[in-house]
Amino acid sequence: MQQIEQDQQKEQEITQNEMPDLIINPYEVVNNSKKQIDYDKLIQSFGCQRIEQSHIERIQTLTQKPVHHYLRRGIFFSHRDLNQVLDAYEAGKGFYLYTGRGPSGDSMHVGHLMPFIFTKYLQEAFDVPVVIELSDDEKFFHKSETTLEEYQRYGYENAKDIIACGFDINKTFIFLSSKYAGHMYHNICKFQHAITYSQLRGIFGLNESDNCGKVAYPAVQAAPSLSSSFKHIFGKDEVMCLVPQGIDQDPYFRMTRDVCYKLKVPKTGCIHSQFLPGLHGFGTKMGTTDPTSAIFLTDTPKQIEEKIKKHAMSGGGMTKKEHQEKGADLTVDVPYHYLRFFLEDDARLEEIRVQYGKGVMMTSEVKKELITVLTKIVTEHQQRRALVTDEMVEKFMELRPLNNYPPKKNN
Amino acid sequence: MQQIEQDQQKEQEITQNEMPDLIINPYEVVNNSKKQIDYDKLIQSFGCQRIEQSHIERIQTLTQKPVHHYLRRGIFFSHRDLNQVLDAYEAGKGFYLYTGRGPSGDSMHVGHLMPFIFTKYLQEAFDVPVVIELSDDEKFFHKSETTLEEYQRYGYENAKDIIACGFDINKTFIFLSSKYAGHMYHNICKFQHAITYSQLRGIFGLNESDNCGKVAYPAVQAAPSLSSSFKHIFGKDEVMCLVPQGIDQDPYFRMTRDVCYKLKVPKTGCIHSQFLPGLHGFGTKMGTTDPTSAIFLTDTPKQIEEKIKKHAMSGGGMTKKEHQEKGADLTVDVPYHYLRFFLEDDARLEEIRVQYGKGVMMTSEVKKELITVLTKIVTEHQQRRALVTDEMVEKFMELRPLNNYPPKKNN
Repeated sequence: MQQIEQDQQKEQEITQNEMPDLIINPYEVVNNSKKQIDYDKLIQSFGCQRIEQSHIERIQTLTQKPVHHYLRRGIFFSHRDLNQVLDAYEAGKGFYLYTGRGPSGDSMHVGHLMPFIFTKYLQEAFDVPVVIELSDDEKFFHKSETTLEEYQRYGYENAKDIIACGFDINKTFIFLSSKYAGHMYHNICKFQHAITYSQLRGIFGLNESDNCGKVAYPAVQAAPSLSSSFKHIFGKDEVMCLVPQGIDQDPYFRMTRDVCYKLKVPKTGCIHSQFLPGLHGFGTKMGTTDPTSAIFLTDTPKQIEEKIKKHAMSGGGMTKKEHQEKGADLTVDVPYHYLRFFLEDDARLEEIRVQYGKGVMMTSEVKKELITVLTKIVTEHQQRRALVTDEMVEKFMELRPLNNYPPKKNN
Repeated sequence: MQQIEQDQQKEQEITQNEMPDLIINPYEVVNNSKKQIDYDKLIQSFGCQRIEQSHIERIQTLTQKPVHHYLRRGIFFSHRDLNQVLDAYEAGKGFYLYTGRGPSGDSMHVGHLMPFIFTKYLQEAFDVPVVIELSDDEKFFHKSETTLEEYQRYGYENAKDIIACGFDINKTFIFLSSKYAGHMYHNICKFQHAITYSQLRGIFGLNESDNCGKVAYPAVQAAPSLSSSFKHIFGKDEVMCLVPQGIDQDPYFRMTRDVCYKLKVPKTGCIHSQFLPGLHGFGTKMGTTDPTSAIFLTDTPKQIEEKIKKHAMSGGGMTKKEHQEKGADLTVDVPYHYLRFFLEDDARLEEIRVQYGKGVMMTSEVKKELITVLTKIVTEHQQRRALVTDEMVEKFMELRPLNNYPPKKNN
């Protein structure tokens, strides 16, 4: 465990000295720079690896499908051991995807969809099993706003939004950690055994008046990284795991990987995304306390239009004249940045980047384009979600084999 | 939680100032006085209640059976809320018994049998369900001598010794906590949520380099105190729990009871036993590192005879003359003290106390009597244990209703 302490020390050091405007850990993301985060520096600081063009080409070759624009545009920008995961896939051993969400009663916003949209793409492209943890216990320990039972209920509701992303019911296992923990308790014990309190404190910033659940929980998030936590899917096979995640979750999985090494099982692979900023600008938060800060999955077309028109921070000039002379500052412009995340058409995005950057295209036009794109995404999501029944949720949560494991042999 | 902190402070204070020779917590029992512990002082220090003659009479009346000599002789000497448990029983609501053991590969000794012998008596007398936790996870976190899988195996082996105590297979549920945790994880979460790290540190003396399992585990020991942890037995009923235990386990249940109060469920009842001293005298430990320190359940009659003859600390005079003049010092005499625990015949025990105390009876005679008693207990235990099959262990561990719950209505 010395390495993790060294890594940790290094991270603290760099975060504090070289990135003074930035705090990133699983429980807090603060960007005081008001600009796009310097993700290259963050990669250095966290000690992970940039996703290179060669990775993208390899994924395209292996899957024989166009790679997702999140990869093409560097929105999923960083990884750990991605090549080892692809090696396992190429060797016919397969791998599985693990992602999750801490359920809350608040409406989910479009930013919450990102890991699921991306995981669903990976599921289709690689045809591998997906496991999704709804960490109701984590929210209970950390938020403590209501009862565990209520967080369980939120978990079921959030599962409907996740299912509405289009996951294949025969290839996806969704679970509430409070309900499933028993099936992976042997692995939870191994993680709890391998991590000291002081290591956790270093990673998560715990203090002594924190409840014991906060100390117990990280192992519950780590355990699904081991295929032996899902005997109904993998039997006794040791299968590699890839975790699509926001970069803020990396400390969890750095800890997880360190324990994997001690347990002599394959280290968990990671693939990290950038953050979607709040509508009010880089460094602002999305949340229900200020409904104008984000586009929620329950918003009406009218609300989407109003929020983007009135509240999406523009990098355009203050006057038409200034805009035409200087162009838009794309490094602070939210509508353009949202189009990077949500407009699939590369050619059109490039056109906007150039024309808007030169001041030929006006903010109002870019916003209009974003309104069209997000209205379509949110409306279609609402239509799919309306079709998700309680029975479907139960089926996704049923302990059963998944029909794409074991992987079919390559010819 | 303020109360628990005050209690804790008080306990620390008294242990350190008034009982300087004594350390008692779930992970350490040290008696440097070389004499019988002053249990009256301990009751004051821990803030529990003495078991009075009135309790014993009430139990006799309620059960219509002779009370166990552990009660008659004050070996189970202290309690918390015993009357509330008896009230529930009298009102026809019943209660259940919860006890347990941290499994180890070492042979069990006769001292380990005590809580099980007593729990089995209570089961017969009250005809109530018994649940028994084998805390393999606790041993894994605290001992770390081998793998979790190996502690599970020890658990199965120890279960055979427990079953050999005579528990009714239709009224007893035995479980390994690593296998059963999922069924009570909702309660584990509630305990972990309700206890802070600093409280645990106060109770168990944790330090920051301890693994996270030691912080997570106390909730796993607490959870079986809630009947909602056993839906297959109690359904949705809220049933009172009584925990027979060594007094060293009291800090666990003081914490448990404090959380019960917060969760608005009945506080767990406790009934505490004194410690059986090691053969070498009061204040000495029993353990496999020194086989002469204890009578093990695997000992042969010859080993029992030799150990007691050679190693059981005597309070008799140094010479026959001195012994006849002064009599035996019963406060340090191990053979007499063992007879208090294991000889059921009150009249005979009293005779020995008087005659041996006066120096009329010699140590060799007392030892001979103890050899007879223990050889019978150990031999019969071995015979019963040989009949315990793996299938029986599986049956005791099966999730099922128990046939004495709900209790039959009183006429």
